[in-house]
Amino acid sequence: MSTAIFYHAGCPVCLGAEQMVAEAIDRSKYQVDIVHLGEQADRIEEAEAAGVKSVPALVLDGQAFHINFGASIEALKH
Amino acid sequence: MSTAIFYHAGCPVCLGAEQMVAEAIDRSKYQVDIVHLGEQADRIEEAEAAGVKSVPALVLDGQAFHINFGASIEALKH
Repeated sequence: MSTAIFYHAGCPVCLGAEQMVAEAIDRSKYQVDIVHLGEQADRIEEAEAAGVKSVPALVLDGQAFHINFGASIEALKH
Repeated sequence: MSTAIFYHAGCPVCLGAEQMVAEAIDRSKYQVDIVHLGEQADRIEEAEAAGVKSVPALVLDGQAFHINFGASIEALKH
């Protein structure tokens, strides 16, 4: 089983991305682990070792992808 | 069926992220479309309308997520 670790810090941007991960990752192939680095500071070192420079980030089998969710101005009007 | 559209421009960073998308997205839930904006310039407008500001980007049901893959210096040594 592959591993997908999603690191976040509880901000709204992270939560939007967390929902993406929760819904889109194929759980028949990936064991998904969601880590709030603000609450689990003991896992910061592990995240850094995987190349995580900012949150939200998704680490797939040790490879870090930084996710930037840009909310549109239109979305903020609703 | 939800839609996942991955926009890229053929650069190595995009290709790494493309592989992530191809392997990690749950295809039982998402119809995955991969678009090379360098070759399919007629889809740039559609990407911009979804909020895409840079590539690689993943649009899940109309919501844009920008993916930044930071290769580690260590990985470049091998």
